[in-house]
Amino acid sequence: MSNWFETLEGLHIQVWDTLIQGLVDAGHPARRPTFATVSPDNWPEARTVVLRGSDTEAGIVSVYSDLHSDKIRSLKKNPRAALHIWDPAQALQIRLKTEVTIASGPAVRPLWENIPAQSRQSYGVSPAPGRPIPDALDYIKNAYPDTFAVLHCRIITIDVVHLGDDHRRASYSRSDDWAGKWLSP
Amino acid sequence: MSNWFETLEGLHIQVWDTLIQGLVDAGHPARRPTFATVSPDNWPEARTVVLRGSDTEAGIVSVYSDLHSDKIRSLKKNPRAALHIWDPAQALQIRLKTEVTIASGPAVRPLWENIPAQSRQSYGVSPAPGRPIPDALDYIKNAYPDTFAVLHCRIITIDVVHLGDDHRRASYSRSDDWAGKWLSP
Repeated sequence: MSNWFETLEGLHIQVWDTLIQGLVDAGHPARRPTFATVSPDNWPEARTVVLRGSDTEAGIVSVYSDLHSDKIRSLKKNPRAALHIWDPAQALQIRLKTEVTIASGPAVRPLWENIPAQSRQSYGVSPAPGRPIPDALDYIKNAYPDTFAVLHCRIITIDVVHLGDDHRRASYSRSDDWAGKWLSP
Repeated sequence: MSNWFETLEGLHIQVWDTLIQGLVDAGHPARRPTFATVSPDNWPEARTVVLRGSDTEAGIVSVYSDLHSDKIRSLKKNPRAALHIWDPAQALQIRLKTEVTIASGPAVRPLWENIPAQSRQSYGVSPAPGRPIPDALDYIKNAYPDTFAVLHCRIITIDVVHLGDDHRRASYSRSDDWAGKWLSP
């Protein structure tokens, strides 16, 4: 029997198992992917997000955002995001190339209702995220559903690297139904 | 006496202390920043890199790369990188917006000479990184100094978020000699 990292199928399953793990385990590195976008003036940007949804069948992962955050501004110009996870325990790097749809308003109200009251305060800070303030705590957190957004990230390709005794790298594309291929690491 | 995260100066010092920690401690999260670039066809990209140098005075951090990697291709078109570190133990996110200079050849030979023999194999894989291969291990690692590159990342701005009992966010710019200002988180 082979190890999971030795076959294209095994690596692919491990990617999704890891993403599911990120959903259920708040301490898992997959809980906090790095979310990279391109700014309107063409700078790369990266920040931590919290993984909120993972749909294996559809090949979609989801994160939440304040509608006034810089990543929304960037995504409106260039609706693409790269999600990056490095899991030291598995020596596994997962990279997702995604097309992003921004959902807000009534469409995401059911998700909003499911957010614990304290966590809702993350959506609706005033002044808007990234605005200068005179002192560190000169802001107010409001639980404000109108600024709550869900980013549905439709995966185009998955790039995986496993740094074991040997290094293995594979790529999976939506275009060939995730069949996968090996890449030079 | 205030906590380090309560003053602009304290947060700024902590950023650089954390970067230094990443250099000396192989297990520290700052050892492995996420390195985001923009691909030639305008997709965001992100991958793990290893922090190799950190110059507080000059405001420059450095990483190594294979000259044939996709990040080099991207940087030749758009010489900008965002470096991202999330340190769970400190609840600290560090984001560096940088302009990147690619150094290779004789200029970086002294650095190459300092790399342990086994690690040198990371620079010179054949086929080049990211090329399809028939099977997982159908590649050869060569210690090949001609494909060794050093990416000098000149920091333009530092964005820091501390997720304590209160959330604090600050930004520091080269343009005002890193004086710093508070931002809404």
